[in-house]
Amino acid sequence: MYAIGLDLGGTNLKGGIVSDNGDVYQFTITPSGVPEGPKKILENLIVLTGFFLKKADEMGISISGIGVATPGIIDPSYGGITGGADNLPGWRGTPFMRTLYEEFKLPVHAHNDVTAITLGELRHGAGRGKQNVILAAFGTGIGGGIVVDGKLYGGHTGYGGEIGHMVIRADGYRCSCGIRGCWEEYASIRGIMRTARNYISKDSLKESTIYIKINNKIENLTPKVLFDSAREGDRLALQIIDEVGNNAAIGIGNLINIFNPELFIVGGGIALAGEIFVESIKKHIHKWSLKDSREATEILLAELGEKAGVVGASTLVFENINRSNFEF
Amino acid sequence: MYAIGLDLGGTNLKGGIVSDNGDVYQFTITPSGVPEGPKKILENLIVLTGFFLKKADEMGISISGIGVATPGIIDPSYGGITGGADNLPGWRGTPFMRTLYEEFKLPVHAHNDVTAITLGELRHGAGRGKQNVILAAFGTGIGGGIVVDGKLYGGHTGYGGEIGHMVIRADGYRCSCGIRGCWEEYASIRGIMRTARNYISKDSLKESTIYIKINNKIENLTPKVLFDSAREGDRLALQIIDEVGNNAAIGIGNLINIFNPELFIVGGGIALAGEIFVESIKKHIHKWSLKDSREATEILLAELGEKAGVVGASTLVFENINRSNFEF
Repeated sequence: MYAIGLDLGGTNLKGGIVSDNGDVYQFTITPSGVPEGPKKILENLIVLTGFFLKKADEMGISISGIGVATPGIIDPSYGGITGGADNLPGWRGTPFMRTLYEEFKLPVHAHNDVTAITLGELRHGAGRGKQNVILAAFGTGIGGGIVVDGKLYGGHTGYGGEIGHMVIRADGYRCSCGIRGCWEEYASIRGIMRTARNYISKDSLKESTIYIKINNKIENLTPKVLFDSAREGDRLALQIIDEVGNNAAIGIGNLINIFNPELFIVGGGIALAGEIFVESIKKHIHKWSLKDSREATEILLAELGEKAGVVGASTLVFENINRSNFEF
Repeated sequence: MYAIGLDLGGTNLKGGIVSDNGDVYQFTITPSGVPEGPKKILENLIVLTGFFLKKADEMGISISGIGVATPGIIDPSYGGITGGADNLPGWRGTPFMRTLYEEFKLPVHAHNDVTAITLGELRHGAGRGKQNVILAAFGTGIGGGIVVDGKLYGGHTGYGGEIGHMVIRADGYRCSCGIRGCWEEYASIRGIMRTARNYISKDSLKESTIYIKINNKIENLTPKVLFDSAREGDRLALQIIDEVGNNAAIGIGNLINIFNPELFIVGGGIALAGEIFVESIKKHIHKWSLKDSREATEILLAELGEKAGVVGASTLVFENINRSNFEF
């Protein structure tokens, strides 16, 4: 069985033909077209789907359906998102599931992107065979996927899993959401960059390899530069990542205490930095979690990397999750 | 159908004969005997059960089983608790389910006390007919009951629901568990008493009715005095409860963001103070929760009051939860 998996992000649209054992063919990354507006996004989805259908023809395989991972809360009866996705202006008003069905006459399934990523990891990645799993996607913010007794948990109205807006410092920085002290202010890419700026005084920077990499311009600093420098043993970079790892461990500890999961998956853009982030979390987690639950919880890096959303989206098709009402 | 429900606490043992529609007969509160050790606790359980069986005889009804709500993590194959309940020394080594069965030859069911309370509220209290519910029991600490898709969630190894040890101020007070900044340091009875002591300087106290009630001795202060004074409009008491209500709202907001529940039940000893605590939570909750989830979540006071554990324990029998291995 094969499906087309599409993973829509604020910057990129990723896609691929995915088999039901999780293998990805024709993996493609292309701009999502968010700056040009929702019509352009939809056009890009259609063009990429058409491309994959042509490729499937050439491969001599048939496609069972189209799966879409998107920011926001899906309402399949509307055929698009009805909440969230504030960074994709106009996307709420776009019933893309309906349009994709009308265009291709294939079943269309869609779900929230972090939920899809979690499903992907659960079926074909770090979470294989697990029943109680939390995934944290560390990116611009921190998104959460919750698996309870083998099933995805979305909450009463689909807004569950907002673990990035768990307050860990009630008197701390104000989050973009308006709440003070949200976890994602301390452990997302936003948190990394703020921590780095707090650490990097002119003098300490000069003794660091970061200095050369960013050409002495703080605005050139990226998480990649930090993680690269840390891997090379740069003391300043290691200090910064240690602090962010501790902040990440606070929220992970909270979730371990609340959920007592068997597995905690560290995913998202920051996780692409690899084991160095997870190691720093593991170093600090004992301070922020109860012994009995901590000892029952494995902490692992996500396995599917940048393909997680595409694999997850295809799984929506294979498992018939959030099927649109606009087919057949 | 009738069962005996027993609710073991650090101070009191509560019990009653409970019908399957949640009515409680012969409700009894007696010292649990914790200071005298686990043998005394077990003796008290046996004596109280014997008393209820005699009463059931007089009432002409038959008893289907014995349900026990206890601090700690139940292992039914052992017949007692295998973790938690640090305030009941020796209780881990006591297979009370086995003993009760051998004594009375009735099915014995047991579960963690907050879980039982949550089940009681779900079947016969504030949570009737709800599917996704969080209950916070505000007492000496803060215990949590989690209901996902109508089912109690205990975590991978039974240690889930430790919401009191969710960190809300990572640089704050150190909790008795060793973690810094746990929610229960700010919003449990411990939190109330600390907040009160922080507020009550000699001078401000003299203008408060609390002054007379505690005979000018801070060691006489209890949560009841505070709540009574607040209800009478005492400004100092209202200030203290406002701060604790805000602290309670931080943790509740976190749980609303994570779980997007349809109902949040405020229970436990503090909740017996009534609506004044819930009102103060509702006043502050908008600052600590995302709009979409908050608007989908009702916040209600627990309904079963001091009988919640007894009703919940009996429900374990009626629903055959944690069936003991020691029957028939």
